[in-house]
Amino acid sequence: MTEAIRKNFASDNIAPVCPEVMAALSRVNEGSAPAYGEDSETQRLSTCMEECFGAPVWVFPVATGTAANSLALSAATAPFGAVICDQSAHIANDEGGAPEFFMHGARLMPLPSPDGRMDPVALDRAMIANVGGGVHTSPIQTLSLTQSTEWGTIYTLDHLKALTKRAREAGLATHLDGARLGNAIAALGCAPADVTWKAGFDMVSFGGTKNGAMAAEAVLIFREDLAQNFARRIKRSGHLWSKQRYLSAQLVALLENGLWLRHAAHANTMAQRLAHGLRRHPAASLPFEVQSNEVFVVLPERTVEELEAQGFEFYRWATPPGIDGVLIRFVTCWATEARDVDHLLDAL
Amino acid sequence: MTEAIRKNFASDNIAPVCPEVMAALSRVNEGSAPAYGEDSETQRLSTCMEECFGAPVWVFPVATGTAANSLALSAATAPFGAVICDQSAHIANDEGGAPEFFMHGARLMPLPSPDGRMDPVALDRAMIANVGGGVHTSPIQTLSLTQSTEWGTIYTLDHLKALTKRAREAGLATHLDGARLGNAIAALGCAPADVTWKAGFDMVSFGGTKNGAMAAEAVLIFREDLAQNFARRIKRSGHLWSKQRYLSAQLVALLENGLWLRHAAHANTMAQRLAHGLRRHPAASLPFEVQSNEVFVVLPERTVEELEAQGFEFYRWATPPGIDGVLIRFVTCWATEARDVDHLLDAL
Amino acid sequence: MTEAIRKNFASDNIAPVCPEVMAALSRVNEGSAPAYGEDSETQRLSTCMEECFGAPVWVFPVATGTAANSLALSAATAPFGAVICDQSAHIANDEGGAPEFFMHGARLMPLPSPDGRMDPVALDRAMIANVGGGVHTSPIQTLSLTQSTEWGTIYTLDHLKALTKRAREAGLATHLDGARLGNAIAALGCAPADVTWKAGFDMVSFGGTKNGAMAAEAVLIFREDLAQNFARRIKRSGHLWSKQRYLSAQLVALLENGLWLRHAAHANTMAQRLAHGLRRHPAASLPFEVQSNEVFVVLPERTVEELEAQGFEFYRWATPPGIDGVLIRFVTCWATEARDVDHLLDAL
Amino acid sequence: MTEAIRKNFASDNIAPVCPEVMAALSRVNEGSAPAYGEDSETQRLSTCMEECFGAPVWVFPVATGTAANSLALSAATAPFGAVICDQSAHIANDEGGAPEFFMHGARLMPLPSPDGRMDPVALDRAMIANVGGGVHTSPIQTLSLTQSTEWGTIYTLDHLKALTKRAREAGLATHLDGARLGNAIAALGCAPADVTWKAGFDMVSFGGTKNGAMAAEAVLIFREDLAQNFARRIKRSGHLWSKQRYLSAQLVALLENGLWLRHAAHANTMAQRLAHGLRRHPAASLPFEVQSNEVFVVLPERTVEELEAQGFEFYRWATPPGIDGVLIRFVTCWATEARDVDHLLDAL
Repeated sequence: MTEAIRKNFASDNIAPVCPEVMAALSRVNEGSAPAYGEDSETQRLSTCMEECFGAPVWVFPVATGTAANSLALSAATAPFGAVICDQSAHIANDEGGAPEFFMHGARLMPLPSPDGRMDPVALDRAMIANVGGGVHTSPIQTLSLTQSTEWGTIYTLDHLKALTKRAREAGLATHLDGARLGNAIAALGCAPADVTWKAGFDMVSFGGTKNGAMAAEAVLIFREDLAQNFARRIKRSGHLWSKQRYLSAQLVALLENGLWLRHAAHANTMAQRLAHGLRRHPAASLPFEVQSNEVFVVLPERTVEELEAQGFEFYRWATPPGIDGVLIRFVTCWATEARDVDHLLDAL
Repeated sequence: MTEAIRKNFASDNIAPVCPEVMAALSRVNEGSAPAYGEDSETQRLSTCMEECFGAPVWVFPVATGTAANSLALSAATAPFGAVICDQSAHIANDEGGAPEFFMHGARLMPLPSPDGRMDPVALDRAMIANVGGGVHTSPIQTLSLTQSTEWGTIYTLDHLKALTKRAREAGLATHLDGARLGNAIAALGCAPADVTWKAGFDMVSFGGTKNGAMAAEAVLIFREDLAQNFARRIKRSGHLWSKQRYLSAQLVALLENGLWLRHAAHANTMAQRLAHGLRRHPAASLPFEVQSNEVFVVLPERTVEELEAQGFEFYRWATPPGIDGVLIRFVTCWATEARDVDHLLDAL
Repeated sequence: MTEAIRKNFASDNIAPVCPEVMAALSRVNEGSAPAYGEDSETQRLSTCMEECFGAPVWVFPVATGTAANSLALSAATAPFGAVICDQSAHIANDEGGAPEFFMHGARLMPLPSPDGRMDPVALDRAMIANVGGGVHTSPIQTLSLTQSTEWGTIYTLDHLKALTKRAREAGLATHLDGARLGNAIAALGCAPADVTWKAGFDMVSFGGTKNGAMAAEAVLIFREDLAQNFARRIKRSGHLWSKQRYLSAQLVALLENGLWLRHAAHANTMAQRLAHGLRRHPAASLPFEVQSNEVFVVLPERTVEELEAQGFEFYRWATPPGIDGVLIRFVTCWATEARDVDHLLDAL
Repeated sequence: MTEAIRKNFASDNIAPVCPEVMAALSRVNEGSAPAYGEDSETQRLSTCMEECFGAPVWVFPVATGTAANSLALSAATAPFGAVICDQSAHIANDEGGAPEFFMHGARLMPLPSPDGRMDPVALDRAMIANVGGGVHTSPIQTLSLTQSTEWGTIYTLDHLKALTKRAREAGLATHLDGARLGNAIAALGCAPADVTWKAGFDMVSFGGTKNGAMAAEAVLIFREDLAQNFARRIKRSGHLWSKQRYLSAQLVALLENGLWLRHAAHANTMAQRLAHGLRRHPAASLPFEVQSNEVFVVLPERTVEELEAQGFEFYRWATPPGIDGVLIRFVTCWATEARDVDHLLDAL
């Protein structure tokens, strides 16, 4: 890891592409190859994913996480239906209405939670109320969860299973937004299967871009009926690359030898290092458990301004009512170095 | 050009990525960069395009041609409207319904033509009939042409102007599908401006992928009102790359020093070489003028099967009624070498 | 029938509401009734339809034919799919893009025919070509036919069966636009079942408005899976009447004692009377068989203008190339009287 | 008013059609009339509305309130945009996703309020936050309010103006859901203009069905640009009646001699009578001001069950947390008689 991200903690997508992914792009850049996913590298990607997840899985690589999430939701949800998710979900806050576009107007139903982790009791209550609405209400057809969550917290496997069990009993499809799935697996110390299909998920958005790729995610589908016509949805939304080998190669590079999990574990470690330092800061308070690679912290406005003045980059978050100070977010990634973190802590 | 495509003439998208584009990807792979198009490479792309086209232009890079076309059409056409295009258009035949998806159900109205070039008289007639339909008909709001066309033919500048003039007088927006725009410019020997905004186009889908890039096209918009909210449409369809520098760098590499036009001219030359040879074949007949990098030829079924048996790759086309033999298509590209063409001709 | 339509032959929708329908509206206008289709009149409508068609059928009344057609097509066709129909179809020419709106962008694929009746060979050819397109093409998922057709012709039962057989073998859903279904049944002298579910149709748009109602059509669904969630589609498109008894009552009035078929037979007779007279006119030529209640005739421009000057109303149609004169259409209906027809013939 | 609704207080849409509307339907049922809104009765409706509202207004009659609301919102909101409304709004809770369907996936952003009346401070806060989201958020483009509200409360004119002023300053379009507009005007004692365009609204859904019509609402548009192409949206959603005279006549009957306001005033009086009686019930508590024709009351479960057992009809509402008992709703209407109310009160 030679390219330090130095002072930029705004997100894990400000990082460059890792050397292994760059090498893979060069590797496949030889001669002609069939277009539109008929290439051998895409075949190889499927094999890698099946080995990684220990199950038959339909693999659809696309370039962005928004596309992965929206395509998955659209395969499971009728245009007149609804998706239930956490109020903090990326699909509900950060995708510019893409889920509604791909789902042709199906509605998102966000549930409030204290830390991005949906409460099974709240889910149960919402689903009962929804049934009562008849044709006047959009029927909930899909449950979408995020792991690790947008607040950097992580569901236990039992928590996930409680939610998916309730959903499946009611006939819902289940989707996991795994833009930062690797960070969760690294933190839980579990197998990729444990947190996905064994935890009750039919579909997973597998994140690559935030974990070292250039632009590569994959929709993983564990239920054959949901995989039907999925390629049509990809084509129809302009997400089918003619030179797909370059998309698949990125993901193959991350999967090989578990690089994606090493990257994720490293990012988690950097976040712990940062959180450890922040906790010693007299004016800092951390509103959420730091479990993956995101660190939220409340700091006085003056301190935040000083950091900005020194060239550090991070996002200011909407500070919840009743909190004195500014809520900001630091994100670490595969390219974060310990000295980058220490430099930030020194500046504080 | 070291990577020969050898026996694969199926399309220009079976080719690898050209060395200059690969070098550009490495060049920008350094340290952190702002996400979502706020990077300096994207700024540089805008500058390059403005220099290339000699006019103010809003530049929106995306990964696929289907996305570029569909996004452009959706910015110009209301959901209750219609787009008039040639019957051979890519948007009407090869994009899996993407235009209708992005336009929320607006309709394509394809006009028949003998060789992919729309007849101004036919356009006039269709537009008059359309007005008569009132609310019972979808109003034509956009004209979309393709240059070079799907049959490998090329519009003269006067022909284009006759069409766009008629369209503009009726208040239509005008779009040019330029997936193979470079081939047309190389063949016409004109400036990029001549065949785009000076020929009456408001929007252009600028093709990169078929011309040496990995996955990079750009929507060029010459009318400010059409550019408004375009970034929202990109985001909402999942086409906004977080690491956009890698998208922009590909196009910068093609534009620098006119590489895209050299590539296109080379591909055209290879097509001429192929056409020249085919014309000498006693059983071959070429139904269209060969003006860019596509060569359509009718050959006896037995001859076609022999080529396939030898490992040559190309598409069989729907043979028009009344033609004896099989209509097939060969496509040349930046990576086609003269010996590849000669090899094919020898095999015949 | 006391309200003569006199000089207006523009369409069957310029007529008033028949007395029996008005009486039914008064009949149900008593006290309170459950809203949104939970009323007893809607239940009665279902019973009437089942008796009329001799089969279990899911009945969904709506106010317009465009809604009936579009809702039916949307239940059978995925947003990425396509509907194959005749080039003259109402859904393809006269519904302002409604089918694409309700189907979320699925495409219509119109097939040319000489007289509005689809050729089974042409259907076969189109379906084979469609399969070859893979993800680049919108897959045909629904066959939609019109009986009687937009040119006033009528399919034989064998003709219909040949088309639906081919469609069903390929897994397509089948839809019949029956805006003028009664006219076809009256002309064929068959049972309603014969021309609908026994002829291979899964869904029928049953027309009432053109046959004496105020604003009442019904989607009849003979396949349970297609009926699922149909009520949701109706509600979501704003077509669920809160006071639905007034919608159902109109259709009940038409069905009772076979009024709809008597109306249709009368309209057919009036069309025959008109056609008979026109055939004696030296300058008139009738391009289509007159089989239902529409009469198309080519007349000299001067003759047409004279009719217009005398206050007769009818539509001028796009005159096909090569025909000398003007193609116009006369439509008769339940309210047309013999003297109205004679008056028109006298004026000629 | 001879048809008593007796024991049915479920909604104002369980009532029959008032005699004046029935008479109007008979009145226009004479001879032929141009189709699709070209009839004289529709012209007359426009005149009536302009007189009633004292301003130029584009009038579009449709059969349902869901259609009126959704069509209006779709004319003002881009598919990538958003509509801000109260959490209790009909569009957000009771229209089966119709707004999202008509708007092609634009999002509703519901704001919480204690009694259905949006707080200007909350509106301001939401709009500021929305701007900060950039392309990642759906931009708010339309404000939709409801008068009288879903909880039976009524905005003062100043309250409405404070909200529309804020919205207009930010370039939003403004829409009023007036399904029960008459009840609000009757209660406020103001002119129809005061609570609509003079209060800052560009578009109004004018309710007729709940106020004595069979199935008739109108979208009133006070801004010419929003009225453009509106007829196309109506046609494209299947809401254009061919025999439109029967739609327009219903509304004409309500407007003539102020019948709609007399109906509304009567319904309000009946609600006051009911509320007055309920307030004397020892176990009843009324959570909202009774200002129009809806009466919400919390009663013990046993009392509610007894009413149901006696055949009274009303809706049980989702009882808010912390409230002991059951929240139910009674609705009065033009057909409610004083003895119906007294009968209900006696039963309690």
